[in-house]
Amino acid sequence: MKQIAEQISGYTYGAADASPVSLRDLENLKVSVGWTKEDERYRRLAGEVLSDQTKPLVDHWRREIIGNIPNLIRHSRTPAGEAISDYSAKSGVRFEQWVLDTCFRPYDQDWLNYQHEIALRHTSLKKNTTDGVDSTPYVPLRDIIAFIAVMNETIKPYLSAKGHTVEDVEQMNRAWTKSLQLQIALWARPYTNSEW
Amino acid sequence: MKQIAEQISGYTYGAADASPVSLRDLENLKVSVGWTKEDERYRRLAGEVLSDQTKPLVDHWRREIIGNIPNLIRHSRTPAGEAISDYSAKSGVRFEQWVLDTCFRPYDQDWLNYQHEIALRHTSLKKNTTDGVDSTPYVPLRDIIAFIAVMNETIKPYLSAKGHTVEDVEQMNRAWTKSLQLQIALWARPYTNSEW
Repeated sequence: MKQIAEQISGYTYGAADASPVSLRDLENLKVSVGWTKEDERYRRLAGEVLSDQTKPLVDHWRREIIGNIPNLIRHSRTPAGEAISDYSAKSGVRFEQWVLDTCFRPYDQDWLNYQHEIALRHTSLKKNTTDGVDSTPYVPLRDIIAFIAVMNETIKPYLSAKGHTVEDVEQMNRAWTKSLQLQIALWARPYTNSEW
Repeated sequence: MKQIAEQISGYTYGAADASPVSLRDLENLKVSVGWTKEDERYRRLAGEVLSDQTKPLVDHWRREIIGNIPNLIRHSRTPAGEAISDYSAKSGVRFEQWVLDTCFRPYDQDWLNYQHEIALRHTSLKKNTTDGVDSTPYVPLRDIIAFIAVMNETIKPYLSAKGHTVEDVEQMNRAWTKSLQLQIALWARPYTNSEW
């Protein structure tokens, strides 16, 4: 398994609590999202392509995009609007690792559990607690859903940076996009009324 | 404004209750999703391209895809698993109209209100009531989110059916995809705990 660094602060992959979403639900979601063996292959190729680009990619998303959207950057800052450098550094490394996990981890029970942990860390149940910071209490689900579109689009130049064919890049982008849609479907769980 | 038919059963556009999401929230979401003037232009072009293809497009999604996914088709059937032809017919026409609305309607208060109405019609608050049918009480939000990926992908041949350049088709698909991400962000609202 590829890791950005040997020690990643707050990265509890493999040790997260059980997700309320079952493996059966996950299999259903993979069907709904149209996940294929091709996507499985191309998400790994995307991982190979991205593995030495995770830092510029995450910096692109955080500094160039989120950093210029007041409604989004506030979730990384104090209530007074000040930057929290330690928080940004630690969550940035986890963000990079998430790119690799999206591409390389088997989508099994551990992955499902950690998806739920990621989701909880965006709600008031767990946001800020991992890094012990004072920031907004939660990120509204709709802001997460909306930003996914930007990530899917802006990742394209990074996917094509290693000279793959247009068709390969498109397939990698398709696998990435489907995976992210699968992930936000999972992240929706702790936000929604338990009945739904 | 383009309408599929003069009379559309259950189509209450312009007469829906106010959305709890404000126009300010909508503007923020458009920023998060990366919505541009180009997207505005290309969603209309997509509408021109799709306007005589809404029936085959919706049939494709419902018969060829949803119809083959038991976890999804159940939401159009009785609890015993029987088809409900009247429900399928009426909701199918609204589905076609939704394609046109995505492309042509101004994203204003009326649109925002109807997005909320669409969302409610997928929850147990309003599902089945519009057409007075007996089917599953709600569609889980995660199933809606997951299926969006399939719609974004499978619409491509329809967008290229009128001989536009590859670049134009890509731009239309980009605008469509961003709009759908914006819409599921809005549809998430009645599913989520009101705090979030």
